[in-house]
Amino acid sequence: MATRGVLRQNTAMLNRREGLRTRYFEVRSATDQLTTPLGPEDQTVQSMADVSPTKWHRAHTSWFFETFVLLPFQPNYCVFDEGYDYLFNSYYESVGPRYPRDRRGLISRPGLSDISAYRKHVDAAMDQFLAADPPPEAADLVELGLHHEEQHQELILMDIQHVLWNSPLQPAYSAETHLAPSPTSCGIEPQWHDLDGGVVTVGHNDLGFGFDNEGPGHQILLAPYRIADRLVTNAQWINFINDGGYSRPKLWLADGWAAVKNLGWQSPLYWEHHNECWTEFSLRGREVIDPSVTVHHISHYEADAFARWSNSRLPTEFEWEHAVRQLRGDSLHDSSANTASTEEHTTQPLNDSEGHVWQWTASAYLPYPGFQPAIGAVGEYNGKFMSGQMVLRGSSCFTPPGHSRVTYRNFFPPAARWVAAGLRLASDT
Amino acid sequence: MATRGVLRQNTAMLNRREGLRTRYFEVRSATDQLTTPLGPEDQTVQSMADVSPTKWHRAHTSWFFETFVLLPFQPNYCVFDEGYDYLFNSYYESVGPRYPRDRRGLISRPGLSDISAYRKHVDAAMDQFLAADPPPEAADLVELGLHHEEQHQELILMDIQHVLWNSPLQPAYSAETHLAPSPTSCGIEPQWHDLDGGVVTVGHNDLGFGFDNEGPGHQILLAPYRIADRLVTNAQWINFINDGGYSRPKLWLADGWAAVKNLGWQSPLYWEHHNECWTEFSLRGREVIDPSVTVHHISHYEADAFARWSNSRLPTEFEWEHAVRQLRGDSLHDSSANTASTEEHTTQPLNDSEGHVWQWTASAYLPYPGFQPAIGAVGEYNGKFMSGQMVLRGSSCFTPPGHSRVTYRNFFPPAARWVAAGLRLASDT
Amino acid sequence: MATRGVLRQNTAMLNRREGLRTRYFEVRSATDQLTTPLGPEDQTVQSMADVSPTKWHRAHTSWFFETFVLLPFQPNYCVFDEGYDYLFNSYYESVGPRYPRDRRGLISRPGLSDISAYRKHVDAAMDQFLAADPPPEAADLVELGLHHEEQHQELILMDIQHVLWNSPLQPAYSAETHLAPSPTSCGIEPQWHDLDGGVVTVGHNDLGFGFDNEGPGHQILLAPYRIADRLVTNAQWINFINDGGYSRPKLWLADGWAAVKNLGWQSPLYWEHHNECWTEFSLRGREVIDPSVTVHHISHYEADAFARWSNSRLPTEFEWEHAVRQLRGDSLHDSSANTASTEEHTTQPLNDSEGHVWQWTASAYLPYPGFQPAIGAVGEYNGKFMSGQMVLRGSSCFTPPGHSRVTYRNFFPPAARWVAAGLRLASDT
Amino acid sequence: MATRGVLRQNTAMLNRREGLRTRYFEVRSATDQLTTPLGPEDQTVQSMADVSPTKWHRAHTSWFFETFVLLPFQPNYCVFDEGYDYLFNSYYESVGPRYPRDRRGLISRPGLSDISAYRKHVDAAMDQFLAADPPPEAADLVELGLHHEEQHQELILMDIQHVLWNSPLQPAYSAETHLAPSPTSCGIEPQWHDLDGGVVTVGHNDLGFGFDNEGPGHQILLAPYRIADRLVTNAQWINFINDGGYSRPKLWLADGWAAVKNLGWQSPLYWEHHNECWTEFSLRGREVIDPSVTVHHISHYEADAFARWSNSRLPTEFEWEHAVRQLRGDSLHDSSANTASTEEHTTQPLNDSEGHVWQWTASAYLPYPGFQPAIGAVGEYNGKFMSGQMVLRGSSCFTPPGHSRVTYRNFFPPAARWVAAGLRLASDT
Repeated sequence: MATRGVLRQNTAMLNRREGLRTRYFEVRSATDQLTTPLGPEDQTVQSMADVSPTKWHRAHTSWFFETFVLLPFQPNYCVFDEGYDYLFNSYYESVGPRYPRDRRGLISRPGLSDISAYRKHVDAAMDQFLAADPPPEAADLVELGLHHEEQHQELILMDIQHVLWNSPLQPAYSAETHLAPSPTSCGIEPQWHDLDGGVVTVGHNDLGFGFDNEGPGHQILLAPYRIADRLVTNAQWINFINDGGYSRPKLWLADGWAAVKNLGWQSPLYWEHHNECWTEFSLRGREVIDPSVTVHHISHYEADAFARWSNSRLPTEFEWEHAVRQLRGDSLHDSSANTASTEEHTTQPLNDSEGHVWQWTASAYLPYPGFQPAIGAVGEYNGKFMSGQMVLRGSSCFTPPGHSRVTYRNFFPPAARWVAAGLRLASDT
Repeated sequence: MATRGVLRQNTAMLNRREGLRTRYFEVRSATDQLTTPLGPEDQTVQSMADVSPTKWHRAHTSWFFETFVLLPFQPNYCVFDEGYDYLFNSYYESVGPRYPRDRRGLISRPGLSDISAYRKHVDAAMDQFLAADPPPEAADLVELGLHHEEQHQELILMDIQHVLWNSPLQPAYSAETHLAPSPTSCGIEPQWHDLDGGVVTVGHNDLGFGFDNEGPGHQILLAPYRIADRLVTNAQWINFINDGGYSRPKLWLADGWAAVKNLGWQSPLYWEHHNECWTEFSLRGREVIDPSVTVHHISHYEADAFARWSNSRLPTEFEWEHAVRQLRGDSLHDSSANTASTEEHTTQPLNDSEGHVWQWTASAYLPYPGFQPAIGAVGEYNGKFMSGQMVLRGSSCFTPPGHSRVTYRNFFPPAARWVAAGLRLASDT
Repeated sequence: MATRGVLRQNTAMLNRREGLRTRYFEVRSATDQLTTPLGPEDQTVQSMADVSPTKWHRAHTSWFFETFVLLPFQPNYCVFDEGYDYLFNSYYESVGPRYPRDRRGLISRPGLSDISAYRKHVDAAMDQFLAADPPPEAADLVELGLHHEEQHQELILMDIQHVLWNSPLQPAYSAETHLAPSPTSCGIEPQWHDLDGGVVTVGHNDLGFGFDNEGPGHQILLAPYRIADRLVTNAQWINFINDGGYSRPKLWLADGWAAVKNLGWQSPLYWEHHNECWTEFSLRGREVIDPSVTVHHISHYEADAFARWSNSRLPTEFEWEHAVRQLRGDSLHDSSANTASTEEHTTQPLNDSEGHVWQWTASAYLPYPGFQPAIGAVGEYNGKFMSGQMVLRGSSCFTPPGHSRVTYRNFFPPAARWVAAGLRLASDT
Repeated sequence: MATRGVLRQNTAMLNRREGLRTRYFEVRSATDQLTTPLGPEDQTVQSMADVSPTKWHRAHTSWFFETFVLLPFQPNYCVFDEGYDYLFNSYYESVGPRYPRDRRGLISRPGLSDISAYRKHVDAAMDQFLAADPPPEAADLVELGLHHEEQHQELILMDIQHVLWNSPLQPAYSAETHLAPSPTSCGIEPQWHDLDGGVVTVGHNDLGFGFDNEGPGHQILLAPYRIADRLVTNAQWINFINDGGYSRPKLWLADGWAAVKNLGWQSPLYWEHHNECWTEFSLRGREVIDPSVTVHHISHYEADAFARWSNSRLPTEFEWEHAVRQLRGDSLHDSSANTASTEEHTTQPLNDSEGHVWQWTASAYLPYPGFQPAIGAVGEYNGKFMSGQMVLRGSSCFTPPGHSRVTYRNFFPPAARWVAAGLRLASDT
């Protein structure tokens, strides 16, 4: 989830500015909360190139505020450590050279205490900065930085799950954690919603925050389609496995079948089969699979194969977005359209559209018509990744509250499996 | 170009049936013609996993008729060699196990004479079969097999260019060959066509042959756009190089920039720079670059970076198709709409829309709404490759005459460079 | 340095038994002392497959006593953690499956505090065990375990040097450390000792401790030879570099030249060249090269190329051993012959034969005539590594005091460079 | 078998000179004879980096005479093709840059007819050159070139066996060929010869031709030992397999066991097990294993493991050489000592010491005391490979008649299996 964004809306928003300082410390504190169960050893390990050590995430998010807010806008800001720019730049080519991503596990030092000091140093400077009246473009970048840090909160959880799974004793992150999808109350068999399609509007409408890749809002022509009212469950996935899902090449895209063979996939990531029983490693440790829970930690290839096995297909990202809006009665003139909504609607909503698992779509991650990246280095946030990845919609149990949107476009390569991702079925009518 | 197809139109077409036998031998003979300049050693070498030896192409295209036409439809057909099914199946999982693609260069035997005998054996059986009245579904498969063989004619040329380039003495395929793009008569600076967009129809209309991936024909909503009337030339590409095109990361998609660094790209494939002069290896051998010729042997990443450098973008495959139709005055009820047309139109056409180089588009290779693969093993022809690839439109100097269509969807991974591919610019209005 | 050994002498040695408990706690404590400057993050990182995390070394040495002493000989010993057997077995196939070597950096847990508790648990049990009168074969295994732990003390220093060098800030292990070779007082130009050779005895004479690979003592026939009285210095190595040592293939073994080209060697490991000045990373951090210090962190290939450039060669391990014995006046009946000796001798000794850097020899690491590995799992200590490695003799500044012997055979693959290894020249007469 | 050599004896030998021209054409013709069963496709393929295409061997051996004889010694010699120097230099760094070894399978051109013309061109020039009275150093190089070409005759057979085995249909080289080891007449259980050892002389005595690595002749001290009178057979090997030879790590060197696991070894190369029957691919095609034939196509690691399973060991190269000399009654003053001898001796000889399979020894391939490589580029023939390889003694059914010697040192890396190599057991007494 290399997503980043820019404020698409620069009109003065007094409330936001007043609330910014409060929100800054809430978000920063939430990051630190996540590391409570983790020792210095846990926070240092990198289990694969795509995963970053926890302590790296904590430093990188501070570097973001230092580099994009404090250095340009706070006149006397004193950099914490000149060497950190090289270490904690993730991928901003415009900012200068950077330490190779796949070697982040070698950063024995700075250690945990150095990085805590770094966070405090940046927080103190930001406190001062936000207490004064920051110019609107700086406030926009602060807000971007907070959304950015929320994305890394999700990455911290995804990544540490992978790290702990690779640790040979597979310790739990936390026994009490609620950070796994809950069972669904509804039955296994999905109900279908039929939608008419037509010329519909999709994308961000510039009210409230959105990443640059969510816009511009624009019209598209949708053919009629149907979409399932719930996500695919573990019970359904076990049926797929038992029906030879992982051994029938005709169900798979060619690249997906190559992954099955080369990587030895026989179940979702983190699953194991012992004594006729499926178990799964989650942040709570290894547990018996609950059939009524939404399947997750599957790749796009697996989602696509499952859909074909079901005589269905994945929805496009536009079908997904349109269905969510339609079924909760959104008006495009309604200013709440871009924000996550938990209220009940009179129409029957799409269950689990948010907060359980990310949902793979049939859409490649490509720019919307008229897309323009943000000006400056933060323009590298999203646009340059628009190749070779697939869009996921919704949000997951790892996503911080309030971070999701109906227009949100998450994206990962089709073989990625350490994302908390599942699927919802669709079909033509 | 792993494209394959099925007849989307099964109505009786008497003319086609009568002409099928003639066309069969024309196509088969054209394949053999291509190998005239090549010795047994040339036809045996595999220069990378994506490239197949010439003799493998010759055998595989025969295997296609044997497997999908003769075995199911010709009662007493006697298989030439039982072992060939394993060797010359390209990727049809339904047909059985197959020899690994990246080891085709180890097939020292069957040798050239065996493979010529195989072709003759299949041709003799097909002669008999076509002389009788083949059932419509068999005739459809013959036509598919001929389009398939035409695709392999293009692959033979692409692949042998790569083989000869890797041969340390870099011999020419043929001194007299006209198999390279010709210079453009028009100047370097493109003219722009402005198009209004709107709800337009794209895709194959089921009149005449088309591969399954070209349909169904359907409506989409296009925003207004502009498109260049000509292809980008070598002269423009040299400007891009001289302006640091290969050393400025901000011009590139992240995956593209990784390819530039990891693979050392500094110019199109086959180019070399000596004594302030650019040369290029083509089927005619190594030659000085002609600035007025269309640039080719570039990846999608390079095309995309060039477009960004030009403050433009690549057209989507639908913008491309719509522009070609509009600018030559196609009517959607016109039965010629799907076929290549060389006649002059009253409106100003898109120059070089066919016959020079394939044109990278901004579109990922994905199924059209309502897409259904063909029934049976030939259903593996196209659909399973709809992941991780980009669409190219038009055709190239390597494409057999009559093989192109305005709805034709060629596709390759974004890093592929041994395709004869270039680009045309587009932009928003 | 995967060396391990067994007592070749099992006669009752009362003094040794009485002193064993004292020595046990001295050695164990010395290991812990080495980790004082290192935080949990430092002790967790694995910088390449050949390097183990510090905390792994600390656990593995405890596992050795638990597995080979306490479990077989201490009736009621209670294993600290059943899972550790899998984690901290280095390579003893007989003992059971083990965690892959190249994934030791993923062991986030057990953390440092767990491993300290493990050490204390084993130490308490050993304290009890040694207070009673352990049977001779157990005492032998304790002594083996202490020599084993001393070997890992050297590995801890070698490995952490590599870890800190790979940490992007390249922190020092300790500012005050004396753990680097000292300058030589003698001039650069070596003096040569001429030796007559003849039938001489080499190998361990079974008085005192020795690893199994040091014996049996046996006679060999040596031709006359000469050997340099001192080690090659940094000054000489810089001359080699400046004379094109790393760019002239005729100086190199074929495998060595391949390593130079493929790995980009242009100087010893840890060296850098900036502003016409050579620096070196040691445990003290990055420092300017001292020309009078012995060169180290070179591979066997480099040592061999340097010798050829010097119109000399490396000594065989037998020439080395014979010269050391001869020049300090050893008698083969002298019981001190196997132990390191720091006293002055009347003859002119070989300078730096111990305590500076390991010395590459021309000898492949092979069994001596009549070699028999120790009985039981500890028989895997040495013999199975007798392939593809070269012998080093002497000892280094990282070697614990008292651990070296004139018969000691250290061994590493010819491309290894993270060993503190240099060379001494020899030639035919 | 990268062995090459130089004449160690430069005294005028009139007989040799007179016979040189005859011998030249005999050897050259024998090379061409070997290619009779092979088409151009067969001669072009490279099945792994260690294997060269047949046509490359044919060109390289001609390049050897062109480069080391004709160019320096024949004043008006006209080079056949300037580009060939780059293509057909195997590894002589002093001669200039060369085409990468692992890409020799890409040399589609020059084709077979070009290479035949090259051979004829060199032969014609050599005919002229040898008709005149070549200077002694040139005659020495011609003789070296002929021994070199004989080595490549063996390589052609070894390599084409690997090529044809990798060709998916696994065609036979020749149905009538006798190029496989014959069954032994003696029973399976070996008899042992006991030898006293002592100070003995080994190595080439400078009478007749020898490669530089065979000398200098020198004295060594051998402990008493015993050696088997025959080679290990397929029957014994099947016992080893059935007794878990490939699944018991304690039988193996650590590197050997890693090869077993990583490469999946379960039998000698070219063996397959179907329906309770072992078959083997030889130049005659796939055949049922004959239990009485000497086992071959095993690595050093396998030979070493088999010996350990047999409670024996491999002989050192000096034990082997001494035993062969002793048991056939060689006198060191006997001028035939260096040549293969087929006559009966009064003492009981070592069966199969020549002509069946190469015999792995326990000796690393290292220089003899006083070894000096030949002067000039041919000095790269042997010495630079003295690292990481093991010595094989004897000769094989692929070795040309007259090419073997009791002092001959063949060498390969310990994992090599495409050599026709087996083993003879030895042990301490």
